[in-house]
Amino acid sequence: MLRARWALPFAVGAGLGAALAPRHRRDSPDPRGEAAEGLLARLPVLPAVAAATTGLPAPPGSGRTELSKYGLPGLAQLRSRESYVLCYDPRSRSALWVIEQLNRDTLSGASDRAACDFQEDDSVHEYHRATNADYRGSGFDRGHLAAAANHKWSQKAMRDTFYLSNIAPQNPHLNQNAWNNLEKYCRSLAKHNRNVYVCTGPLFLPRTEADGKMYVKYQVIGKNNVAVPTHFFKVLILEKESGEIELRSYVMPNSPVDEKIPLERFLVPIESIERASGLLFVPNILRRTSNLKAITAGSKS
Amino acid sequence: MLRARWALPFAVGAGLGAALAPRHRRDSPDPRGEAAEGLLARLPVLPAVAAATTGLPAPPGSGRTELSKYGLPGLAQLRSRESYVLCYDPRSRSALWVIEQLNRDTLSGASDRAACDFQEDDSVHEYHRATNADYRGSGFDRGHLAAAANHKWSQKAMRDTFYLSNIAPQNPHLNQNAWNNLEKYCRSLAKHNRNVYVCTGPLFLPRTEADGKMYVKYQVIGKNNVAVPTHFFKVLILEKESGEIELRSYVMPNSPVDEKIPLERFLVPIESIERASGLLFVPNILRRTSNLKAITAGSKS
Repeated sequence: MLRARWALPFAVGAGLGAALAPRHRRDSPDPRGEAAEGLLARLPVLPAVAAATTGLPAPPGSGRTELSKYGLPGLAQLRSRESYVLCYDPRSRSALWVIEQLNRDTLSGASDRAACDFQEDDSVHEYHRATNADYRGSGFDRGHLAAAANHKWSQKAMRDTFYLSNIAPQNPHLNQNAWNNLEKYCRSLAKHNRNVYVCTGPLFLPRTEADGKMYVKYQVIGKNNVAVPTHFFKVLILEKESGEIELRSYVMPNSPVDEKIPLERFLVPIESIERASGLLFVPNILRRTSNLKAITAGSKS
Repeated sequence: MLRARWALPFAVGAGLGAALAPRHRRDSPDPRGEAAEGLLARLPVLPAVAAATTGLPAPPGSGRTELSKYGLPGLAQLRSRESYVLCYDPRSRSALWVIEQLNRDTLSGASDRAACDFQEDDSVHEYHRATNADYRGSGFDRGHLAAAANHKWSQKAMRDTFYLSNIAPQNPHLNQNAWNNLEKYCRSLAKHNRNVYVCTGPLFLPRTEADGKMYVKYQVIGKNNVAVPTHFFKVLILEKESGEIELRSYVMPNSPVDEKIPLERFLVPIESIERASGLLFVPNILRRTSNLKAITAGSKS
């Protein structure tokens, strides 16, 4: 049997190792109770150089104002950049979602991709940050969530898309073919509509295994354990010249996709993405308009 | 080979199914490119009954105020209750972290656990909410993050710990033995200190598999795909009568743990939990005190 090693970064408790060690296997009907070696090296606790959360007052409505006395350990990490707004997921070392706005103005310009380099996002705490080294030799591309070519209007906007917080490990074939086609399609829509809002993010979808149970399984790469999504989504909110709002939502697997398959066959109901991602789109849109049309496969626009 | 079925709730695009289907396998060096049947049934997009995010103004510092015009799809979901503050994770259908404050006052009282029932948290959108049915027949206990017995001081405070947002699927042996002992230990510390702040949460730790790569793998249960953590953490911030702040951080696997193993052997450096969970504790604490002592295995208090 595989000797699996649970990776708690740097160190696990001796008991934690022991609890997973063979001598306790007799108590363990759990299939995850495989043998493990605890990493016993211990690091001193060092004060972190920067905090991702700020010292907050007690949350509104709290009857127990003392509860947040020593801070709240994690809150939404929004990053607002020239070309996008992003919500960072410190556990996966990538974004939960990224929103861009595309229109004729943002697509035109002379910005040069060759002048951009992938860069660590040092606004993210070093414990939770992906580095270029994490991707090296992994077999995955540094896949843009907000696409670089969407932001020719400003060199800075384009450069901002190269922060590794806007990047996720992506299958190279997908990145360079079908996903690239989807990005191009977004830009073509931007030419024929008033605005296109594009929200992109990773998915970690479960599947049924041989034991009949459902599992989420994904690879992590590099020293910082950057999560490799099983799928990616793009939600397109189209503002048409007529004022109508149209919604198109796509999911692609993080594996090679034949680019001969028409993009419309990757359309999924928005509800599928909302349930799987933990995000909500429709309630927010319905606050702005009652003139919403959702496009799914088979419907013609 | 296993015919795996990716579960995008309710529906996947026809192309999404096709991309994973055998006829495209020749293009697929990716081990995840297993055969899959797309679920072709399509649901109409229904307006959601409630939104987890509120209509927000543009994030501060945004040069592009239009970006949030149709809302931001997900932000931190804080819940402030009588007995705890919680940050909800809509993707896993459980909490990212829960903080409680324990002291002599909160431990005493006549509140009755028998008067409490596990209940859905209807402040969470129905798409992202765990139900009692999800746990039924799963083989997992509904494990409290903030423990019920910590809140004898108020029947309402105790009842609030029974919201399923404060619950995660937990191995029954762990829940009823070693983890229960850790909870009791927290209460014993609360008797001998001014205050004990307890932060509890799930971990989803990677491990190395036979191919030499690292993967995170966890089960999901029920119709709502409630994530089963691989491990749990508890971070204890002790306010001593002397004014000194002491930090103790524990990790236990979500599998049977021999209760003869001393609890101190599950101590881990706080940095391990901070890196794995995506949370930060130390920077927040250091804003309140410079008198911080971190306890790891081997140190004596």
